[in-house]
Amino acid sequence: MASKGVIALDAMGGDNAPSSVLHGANTATERFPDLHWLVVGDETQIRPLLSTLPRLADRVEVLHTESRVANSERPSVALRSGRQSSMWLAIQAVQEGRAQAVVSGGNTGALMAISRFILRSPPGIVRPAIISFFPTARGETAMLDLGANIDCDAEQLVQFAVMGALFARSVLGLPHPTVGLLNVGVEDMKGNDEIRAAAQRLRQGEYPFHFHGFVEANEIGRGAVDVVVSDGFTGNVALKMAEGTSELYSHFLREAFNASWMAKIGYLLAKRTLTQLRSRVDPRRYNGAVFAGLNGVVVKSHGSTDAFGFSNAIGVAADMLQHGFMEDIRKECERLHWDTSTAAQAASA
Amino acid sequence: MASKGVIALDAMGGDNAPSSVLHGANTATERFPDLHWLVVGDETQIRPLLSTLPRLADRVEVLHTESRVANSERPSVALRSGRQSSMWLAIQAVQEGRAQAVVSGGNTGALMAISRFILRSPPGIVRPAIISFFPTARGETAMLDLGANIDCDAEQLVQFAVMGALFARSVLGLPHPTVGLLNVGVEDMKGNDEIRAAAQRLRQGEYPFHFHGFVEANEIGRGAVDVVVSDGFTGNVALKMAEGTSELYSHFLREAFNASWMAKIGYLLAKRTLTQLRSRVDPRRYNGAVFAGLNGVVVKSHGSTDAFGFSNAIGVAADMLQHGFMEDIRKECERLHWDTSTAAQAASA
Repeated sequence: MASKGVIALDAMGGDNAPSSVLHGANTATERFPDLHWLVVGDETQIRPLLSTLPRLADRVEVLHTESRVANSERPSVALRSGRQSSMWLAIQAVQEGRAQAVVSGGNTGALMAISRFILRSPPGIVRPAIISFFPTARGETAMLDLGANIDCDAEQLVQFAVMGALFARSVLGLPHPTVGLLNVGVEDMKGNDEIRAAAQRLRQGEYPFHFHGFVEANEIGRGAVDVVVSDGFTGNVALKMAEGTSELYSHFLREAFNASWMAKIGYLLAKRTLTQLRSRVDPRRYNGAVFAGLNGVVVKSHGSTDAFGFSNAIGVAADMLQHGFMEDIRKECERLHWDTSTAAQAASA
Repeated sequence: MASKGVIALDAMGGDNAPSSVLHGANTATERFPDLHWLVVGDETQIRPLLSTLPRLADRVEVLHTESRVANSERPSVALRSGRQSSMWLAIQAVQEGRAQAVVSGGNTGALMAISRFILRSPPGIVRPAIISFFPTARGETAMLDLGANIDCDAEQLVQFAVMGALFARSVLGLPHPTVGLLNVGVEDMKGNDEIRAAAQRLRQGEYPFHFHGFVEANEIGRGAVDVVVSDGFTGNVALKMAEGTSELYSHFLREAFNASWMAKIGYLLAKRTLTQLRSRVDPRRYNGAVFAGLNGVVVKSHGSTDAFGFSNAIGVAADMLQHGFMEDIRKECERLHWDTSTAAQAASA
């Protein structure tokens, strides 16, 4: 299936913008030749770059602005005074239907705040959540929420499970994903009230996935489930702990290979397969965190990534367009009557 | 300084008991020749083993029982019907002053419940917490709570910080530890109300450590702080995520070394330093989780560890005795007036 549509690119977000953004998009055109691009940023910087990227230049519209959201800016400040920023205009393009997705390497808090303000959530979704995915022994596993919601009630955890499963379907290509609730044990009485209530609802309802039950953090790397659901505080800590631990392991490994001449020669002999290993766990391959539960696809790229990393964040957005993630979410909201129940709650509030 | 005192050993707790327990204690006598041992369990199994371990046998008293707490037993059941169990009798020996510390590889929940019931907390300590430590790029870092308290308020987090610092002093040998509060960002407004309130108190008060502020999970492996403080849910998830990630990394590494003949030869050449690396991250070296905040030293060993692992759990208990951990806790409770403030709370409740 060809991926059609327009992706808006915040060409001022991230350390290496606009170069990494445009080179990343140019790489992405190979996998997604039918996509069009709306590049938002400083035309005087963008045009010279585009002239070196003819494949991309053919399918690009440039929206000029000189204003950007700084990395240090508070989300509330960006909301008040960032209306001419590249980030704002890129998100607005999705709201206006000029694009179907936006990819930005800018300030995470501002991107979430502006996206929520402009795009809002589909009827029924309480709050958006941040999803990402990473390698495991059996393939890839998605996790949410990664920090958008510090405290979550059972209703939100159930919604995260649905959004995570639809993400696994679109982006990881898993038609029947398994979903687990992150907990400190697998027995029924473990965890807090909200987690236990969410588990009860997930066991009873009919959802577009297999509910595995509780999952402990040490089982995630083994690929015990395709989607891990937790509140945003725990999810953020878990993801960063995994990052820190693999960084530490790499550090120890470098030390071990440098500890003797024999080890150095050993490293040279194993270099090819070790390089494959490094590529397998390369964070750039897993770049692209999705803000799910908004009226439009919003993908956050790491600010410090390069063109390869940025092209992967674009790939996540393109997969979501191609596989109809937004349509899936709306259908599930309807099927599960979230749209009417939340509307009723709002009316009675 | 010689380490004097008696350590009570639950010789029926853990998969390889009593063999791993007694062999572990025998190993520990090398580092701690002045310790005495109270071995609680089935004399008919213990005596034949002791006859092969003369160094240990010289300093052992055996307390016979044939009853044990099963691994699958609910803590509430163990509390009601476990009074003749090896675990109960070993903890009771600490309460009666026959021993100063207890080490058990048995059921974690039961060990916590029975320890709290028999030993209770020193005046001022709201609830005990579980502490453990692990390797980082700069040495070793301790973390608590690892699962005793799912929800924690600011008061508890402050107490964890103090207990963690005293643990780092006794067991990690760090006279001036730095303590960080685990959070999803380092800015003041990050986290929930309790974490922010705890940070404010830790910044203002005079505590026996340097307060680093908030710490993110990806900084832990770099050794950003000596002690990481969090609620028991987050701490449990973080520790297990680190375990799962290093397991995954080892799995990937084994695959890489098996992927080609060149890589296999490379492995053989680097084997000596890689084995040193494996020993550096060997979980048995970091065995021994402390239940801090009780009237007595209680150390939980992994149930599946061997004699080497068990000897390290004993080493943690012995270090705590040697360096006066219990005395330190009581002094801090007094100095910080926790003893009187909690007594006042209890009186007004």
